[in-house]
Amino acid sequence: MAAIKHISSTQNPEIRQLEHWNRKSRDRIRDGRFVLEGLRELQLALKGGYRPEKLYFCPEIVSEQQLREVPGLGQYPLVSLSPEVYRHLAYRGKTEGVIGLVPTRSHDLATLVFRRESPLVLVAEAPEKPGNIGALLRTADAAGLDAVLIADLQGDLYNPNVIRSSVGCLFTVPVGVGSSQEVLAFLRHRGMQVLAASLGGAVRYDRADYTGPTALVVGTEADGLTRLWQEEADARVEIPMAGAIDSMNVSVAAAILIFEAMRQRGFGP
Amino acid sequence: MAAIKHISSTQNPEIRQLEHWNRKSRDRIRDGRFVLEGLRELQLALKGGYRPEKLYFCPEIVSEQQLREVPGLGQYPLVSLSPEVYRHLAYRGKTEGVIGLVPTRSHDLATLVFRRESPLVLVAEAPEKPGNIGALLRTADAAGLDAVLIADLQGDLYNPNVIRSSVGCLFTVPVGVGSSQEVLAFLRHRGMQVLAASLGGAVRYDRADYTGPTALVVGTEADGLTRLWQEEADARVEIPMAGAIDSMNVSVAAAILIFEAMRQRGFGP
Repeated sequence: MAAIKHISSTQNPEIRQLEHWNRKSRDRIRDGRFVLEGLRELQLALKGGYRPEKLYFCPEIVSEQQLREVPGLGQYPLVSLSPEVYRHLAYRGKTEGVIGLVPTRSHDLATLVFRRESPLVLVAEAPEKPGNIGALLRTADAAGLDAVLIADLQGDLYNPNVIRSSVGCLFTVPVGVGSSQEVLAFLRHRGMQVLAASLGGAVRYDRADYTGPTALVVGTEADGLTRLWQEEADARVEIPMAGAIDSMNVSVAAAILIFEAMRQRGFGP
Repeated sequence: MAAIKHISSTQNPEIRQLEHWNRKSRDRIRDGRFVLEGLRELQLALKGGYRPEKLYFCPEIVSEQQLREVPGLGQYPLVSLSPEVYRHLAYRGKTEGVIGLVPTRSHDLATLVFRRESPLVLVAEAPEKPGNIGALLRTADAAGLDAVLIADLQGDLYNPNVIRSSVGCLFTVPVGVGSSQEVLAFLRHRGMQVLAASLGGAVRYDRADYTGPTALVVGTEADGLTRLWQEEADARVEIPMAGAIDSMNVSVAAAILIFEAMRQRGFGP
C-alpha cells in the first residue's frame, strides 16, 4: 500500500482550497466540488451515486484500517490530517474524523427519472434558508417522493447547512433545479397536476385528489408563493389554521400535504 | 406623565439582573421572571394573559409615544435604554426596540382547561432542543390544539430559544408540565386515549381513530419514546417511512399526526 500523504499545517494550499470550497458557494459552483463531513453523510452520498475524489481523515479519531473497512469507502485516495488541521476544517465538534472532497452532480430537470408511474414531487419556490431546504429533503426522503424540485434556488445546494440539515438526504432524494418557468414547463411536459399551497380562497388540502401525477408547490414562510405559481397552478390547496399565528413552518406545511397525498395513495410504492 | 428612568450603562444592576434572567434558567425558575424581546412576542404574551412588570425600550428605535399606542401595552412602567445597553441585552439584531420583564405562569397540569369537549392534546416526552419545543408549539397553535403537555422537561420553558422558535406560540397555546408519570395519570384521569408515535409493531397512523379525547405522544428524535409511554399507551401509531433515513424531525412527525387527527375531526372547533 502506498504511503499516505500527511498534512499538518492549516496553511497548506490543499487545505486552503478545501476551506474555500467549504465556505464559498461561488467556488463550489465554479469548480463543481464540495466538502462533505462525516462518515454517515459520506455513506449516503455513495448510496446516492456520488464518488469522492479524496478522503481526508484524522488518524487520532479514525484509523486508516477502520476507514478501509467501511463498505464502499475503501477505494478512494486518503490524506491524513493532524488533529489541528482536522479541527480547523471540520464544522461540527464531534464527527467521525473523515471529510470527503466530492464532485457535485447535475441537477438538470431533463435528467430526472421518476420511480413511480404516477409520480409525486415537491416543488419549493425560492426557499430562504439552507435549513428549510434540508428539512424539506428530509421529509421527501421519509415519504419516498420521486423528486424535489427547487425553483429559483438562492445560493447553492451544496451549502454545508443544507447538507447538515438534510442529514444526508440531499444525496438520497433526486433533486432538480431550475427557474420557476423551467420547473413549470417541466411539470406540464410530464403531464403533472400542479397544486399550490396557499392561504385563502383555496380548496381545503384534504379535499384535493393526489392520486394522479402530482406536484405539490410550497413558497417561502414569509411571503408564500409568487403570483406565477398561484396563477398557473391547477388548484390552490390550503391547510386550515386555527391559531393565533397565521403561518406555519414551511417544512411542516409540506409534510402535511405530502403525507395526505401518501395517505390517499395508500402509502404504496 | 412621570419622568421615565433612563439606563445608559451595561453595568447597571437592573441590567445585570435582566441578563441573568435571560441567560440562566436557574434564575428564571427561582424568581419566576423571564425576559421577552420584540413587540410581536409581547403582544402575543398579552393575548395569552401574561402581564409585563416593566418594559425596557430604546428611544432610538421606538418612541415612547409609539409604545403607548400599542393596544394593551400602554399601561406598563417604562424604562428607556441607551442603544448600547439595548444592543447588549437584545438577542436578535433587529428587533422592535422593546424588551419586557414578565412573570412566568403556572404550568401545573391541574390548572389546564380544555376548549373542546373531545380534546386533542400533544404530549412531548423530554424534547432535547429548545428549537424542537418551539416548533411543536407553533404547530399546536396552527392546529388549535387544546394543550401541549411536556413530560420530563429538560431545562426550562422560558428559554429564549424556546420563545424565539415558537414565534410567540408559547404564550398562545396552553402548556402543561409534569413528570411522565404525572402526565400519564392526568390523561387517564381525564379519560383520554393515549396514542404513542412509534417505529415498528404499530398501527399505521391513519388507521387509528382520533375523534375521541386523544393525546398524541412523541418522543425524542434520537431515541423515540421511553418504555413507560410505549407500554402504557392504548395504541402505538406509526408513520410509514420509505426513505434512506429512518428518522423524521419530531415536529414534522407530530404535525403529520396532529393534522390527520384534525382531518378526521373535519377541522371542527
